[in-house]
Amino acid sequence: MKIVLATKNKGKAAEFASILGDKFELITQAESGITESAEENGTTYAENSRLKAKFIFEKTGLPTMADDSGLECDALDGAPGVYTARFAGEGATDSTNIDKLLAVLDEEENRKARFVAHITLVMENYEIHCEGTLDGEITRGRRGTNGFGYDPVFIPEGYDKTLAELDDEVKNSISHRRKAIEKMQKALSDLNLNV
Amino acid sequence: MKIVLATKNKGKAAEFASILGDKFELITQAESGITESAEENGTTYAENSRLKAKFIFEKTGLPTMADDSGLECDALDGAPGVYTARFAGEGATDSTNIDKLLAVLDEEENRKARFVAHITLVMENYEIHCEGTLDGEITRGRRGTNGFGYDPVFIPEGYDKTLAELDDEVKNSISHRRKAIEKMQKALSDLNLNV
Repeated sequence: MKIVLATKNKGKAAEFASILGDKFELITQAESGITESAEENGTTYAENSRLKAKFIFEKTGLPTMADDSGLECDALDGAPGVYTARFAGEGATDSTNIDKLLAVLDEEENRKARFVAHITLVMENYEIHCEGTLDGEITRGRRGTNGFGYDPVFIPEGYDKTLAELDDEVKNSISHRRKAIEKMQKALSDLNLNV
Repeated sequence: MKIVLATKNKGKAAEFASILGDKFELITQAESGITESAEENGTTYAENSRLKAKFIFEKTGLPTMADDSGLECDALDGAPGVYTARFAGEGATDSTNIDKLLAVLDEEENRKARFVAHITLVMENYEIHCEGTLDGEITRGRRGTNGFGYDPVFIPEGYDKTLAELDDEVKNSISHRRKAIEKMQKALSDLNLNV
């Protein structure tokens, strides 16, 4: 079965392929011939992942999978949430986003946070949706140089290193996205698809 | 497999049961022992149906299905949409909602509209989501006495009677909810569930 993965990120595509297995032929958005992307104007990760996948499904007719993810801080009532990638506003970078997060948390004692990933697979008659989370806490300053995004300020539960201090292998084995992809793999193995 | 249907409406429960077939034991929200319902504060039908089903799944651990639906008018940029049941505000009734719809459409030439239904089935590892639509147009005044909601002012495409003038049998055979339930039936028959 051929599935379009609505992403332009090759590392992400490889991660999906390795978990979903070779029962499915994952093709990238570029390989599906679609250059535009959906506007991600949903108010939830579920809605954004659905919008991204549906946009390509409607143009290609091919089963399409998309993910959306974010960081939620308890002390900030779940912010930055769907604004994770643009927390610092127009032209936000990993660096300015982290600066803003550390500034708004400031001396806050409650540093509890989690990364959340949602994946939606849109097909002709129905959609499959799953989610994964990684609990942890926000540090008071940057540590480590691996990874991207908020990795230098996030310590996963049960660890004493930030995601940016952990090896890629460890990070990928516990990530929110990995948990969501594993659930999608479960769904696909439950489905008797003859596509 | 036992599935909770998150509704207090017995007619709706019977409709789901007749389409999904006896491979599934549908139990009502009351039979699951849950008296409260989720707050339907989503901005989309998809999100609202998901919120309703998840609320009960999280309390019972049982696979739970919920639906959400609404009316969308092209001339009103998709309104009333998720506000369909409360279009006329606090304490809205079928009658005040219809009054408001006819008033805001007024002399508008473009009467095109559609009913949309979304259903979400929440399970432990993933969710199934499907939707159905019924295209039609809004009349300039009430006609017929069957049904409920906006039925007296909605003429389905291909018909010259309002839903409130059509027999229940005809109405149920073309309804947006029926189309969504039929897709859910398709999903469930594709799934090799051993629950």
